[in-house]
Amino acid sequence: MTSEIGQSINVGLMGLGTVGGGVADALLEHAADIKRKTGRTVCLRRALVRDIARPRTPELPAGALTANPEDILADPDVHIVVEVMGGDSPAGEYLERALAAGKHVVTANKEVMSRRGPALLELAQSQHVNLLFEASAGGGIPIVGCLMSQLLANEIRSIRSIINGTTNYILTRMARQQTPFADALAEAQARGYAEADPTNDIDGIDAAYKLSVLGGLAFHRPIPHGAIYTEGISRLAPEDFRYAAELGYAIKSLAIATAEPGGAVRARVHPALVSEDHLLAKVEGVYNAVEVTGDLCGQIILHGQGAGRDATTSAVMGDLLNIVRGIDNAEGPPPLPFSNGPAEGTQFAVQPIDELSSAYYMRLTCADQAGVLAQIARILGEGNISIATVIQKDTDPGSGTAQLVITTYPSREANVQTALAAVAQLGVVISVNNLIRIEE
Amino acid sequence: MTSEIGQSINVGLMGLGTVGGGVADALLEHAADIKRKTGRTVCLRRALVRDIARPRTPELPAGALTANPEDILADPDVHIVVEVMGGDSPAGEYLERALAAGKHVVTANKEVMSRRGPALLELAQSQHVNLLFEASAGGGIPIVGCLMSQLLANEIRSIRSIINGTTNYILTRMARQQTPFADALAEAQARGYAEADPTNDIDGIDAAYKLSVLGGLAFHRPIPHGAIYTEGISRLAPEDFRYAAELGYAIKSLAIATAEPGGAVRARVHPALVSEDHLLAKVEGVYNAVEVTGDLCGQIILHGQGAGRDATTSAVMGDLLNIVRGIDNAEGPPPLPFSNGPAEGTQFAVQPIDELSSAYYMRLTCADQAGVLAQIARILGEGNISIATVIQKDTDPGSGTAQLVITTYPSREANVQTALAAVAQLGVVISVNNLIRIEE
Repeated sequence: MTSEIGQSINVGLMGLGTVGGGVADALLEHAADIKRKTGRTVCLRRALVRDIARPRTPELPAGALTANPEDILADPDVHIVVEVMGGDSPAGEYLERALAAGKHVVTANKEVMSRRGPALLELAQSQHVNLLFEASAGGGIPIVGCLMSQLLANEIRSIRSIINGTTNYILTRMARQQTPFADALAEAQARGYAEADPTNDIDGIDAAYKLSVLGGLAFHRPIPHGAIYTEGISRLAPEDFRYAAELGYAIKSLAIATAEPGGAVRARVHPALVSEDHLLAKVEGVYNAVEVTGDLCGQIILHGQGAGRDATTSAVMGDLLNIVRGIDNAEGPPPLPFSNGPAEGTQFAVQPIDELSSAYYMRLTCADQAGVLAQIARILGEGNISIATVIQKDTDPGSGTAQLVITTYPSREANVQTALAAVAQLGVVISVNNLIRIEE
Repeated sequence: MTSEIGQSINVGLMGLGTVGGGVADALLEHAADIKRKTGRTVCLRRALVRDIARPRTPELPAGALTANPEDILADPDVHIVVEVMGGDSPAGEYLERALAAGKHVVTANKEVMSRRGPALLELAQSQHVNLLFEASAGGGIPIVGCLMSQLLANEIRSIRSIINGTTNYILTRMARQQTPFADALAEAQARGYAEADPTNDIDGIDAAYKLSVLGGLAFHRPIPHGAIYTEGISRLAPEDFRYAAELGYAIKSLAIATAEPGGAVRARVHPALVSEDHLLAKVEGVYNAVEVTGDLCGQIILHGQGAGRDATTSAVMGDLLNIVRGIDNAEGPPPLPFSNGPAEGTQFAVQPIDELSSAYYMRLTCADQAGVLAQIARILGEGNISIATVIQKDTDPGSGTAQLVITTYPSREANVQTALAAVAQLGVVISVNNLIRIEE
């Protein structure tokens, strides 16, 4: 198929819901950016929807909407199919047909990749096309690609992950506010973090699909969804969180796959007590995190947004751009990473530190006497530097000095440096000991 | 060059120090594994060292050691050069010659990639070969590939990172034990975390090289090392950590690059106060972390080992295997991710939860009377389950009940389930409220 591709790469988008809208947006609004990053023009040729009459944002080019999957699957000018419909069927059959027709495929579909991944990947290999699925597990967290590519040299020992944002939101509420499960669930539903029927999330089914995908990549074998031990979070009570905290633990719903002696794998999704010292215990709200332990890399943790329109679009578009960059090697390798950047005319300067706007921490040794702070505050005020907090510390009656710790609201670096030089000249200031920027 | 490559891919290794030894080890010890993952045989053909007479582990094949770079650069049968010598020169010239000779290159060299990256990548493009450099920043953390590949669709807003393990170790010691800087540095040197001349690490020079590489990828333009504002950690005093903690902050040395209005970039390395709520504040000891904020992906954090033999080998070997997988597209795409796994004969079973060994948390509602714990402990003991802690809580004089929270040492899941079923039958046990696994 490679040789038939002209200048423009055409995408057939299957599904135009939340994520599909994000992908369509990215294709339409960032066409110039995509061209710079891939060297190719990428067109949204068709988008499959249920009802073509419904008004949509973004508005698609005339004729792009279709309710007939054949308009994508049977169109020889569609080079890449992007599937964001979800569910096993008919999405699975569509992907099989797309691959069989020699089209590259990007999918965000955890259920299809869990149930049919091995067969679809085999088909893609025999057809010499790509099947990429970064968005199928971990949302915007680049864990799928890391397991397939950067961490490939490792023998993976274990994956431990928080890969369902709905349950993590509920558990975070229960832990922080001692909210009963039912109330936390209702709140998640009210905020749009949980569906009307929350079964897939709270019973661990969604996490098991994702673990099936990640475990398959980590351990190089299919991990059937049905072989994963799955336990939900509905039995947890506020007192469990209280007692766990007393013992030094948080409670998280973990999806875990481990290499076991003899080459076996164990995979499980269930609530777990996690030591409060561990980064997984600090994953809050709808955030996700995946810990990978390999023989070489040791323990790596990836933390980010596991769902949502933009994060999922990041993963889908990343796959798409990588396919486009490699779609025709005859045209040479993809553009240089250091030169496929901003449009002409934008400013390339690396800015000096002087213009930085930052909050600051400053520590001074001063005479322990009245009016010192007033003198310092006056100088800072003249430099447009607002004081946020002042702490006086370590008063030393012997030397008559004290430590003055001042934090500021965001200010211009050059102003702070100038003001501090003036402060250092004050008779009541023995020394300026430190100036440290505050990163919120 | 592609067409000249036969079945075996030959590697020329430049440098056989700590990381070079790890790479040689991986190539020699894991040859079968590499074959499975790439479909190709990869041979360590030559390794460049200063002194070929010095005894080494692992022992290399006879004739593999050489002190003459020409034995690698001028050998047409070396397909991939792996450079782990470090330093700008002569490594930079060697890489230039390797690329000019049509060889693929993997490098762990932050200084070369910072100073010559754009020119070398241009050369690699014109030669239709790969130049990969995952190990040049972040060690085993797969951040370089993520910026080049998975996160490619994003407009990156900022990178904030802890990318020097030596300084983070020192700062962690200073924060935890109120150790003065000089003592913490001496301790880092004694443990091998800091070099005899620690200037590059503690003055932020090492971090600036790495930030130059990461910023270049994130913002698609060269970030000259000299344009990065760099400030070391030697002025920090134990009282700064104490005062910062009172204000709710940790102190970390951050390497930061941000997109500024008008398309400019600001890049800086300096100590910073980081809110204790932020994951970056929780990066301990020699660990590294990189936070990337993109318009689509939002905030992503990658955490792991930023240096060391194994972690760096993970990154170098990942690059190498990815080059090998793509080295000759005429042979078809790389093996399937779900099927390039363990050797024949290993057990493929996904293990049931029954055989899990885990520590457990159990919460019971019991009669508040003497002897209850003894009855429960006897049943657990019969199941080979050792009790780690017992807390009695929420005694209710009205109902005469209490909550009993028991944690166990690692035990077999099936034993715990059986024992707990027996415990539930005890007359003094009103209910078994919860059983939660503990993940350390």
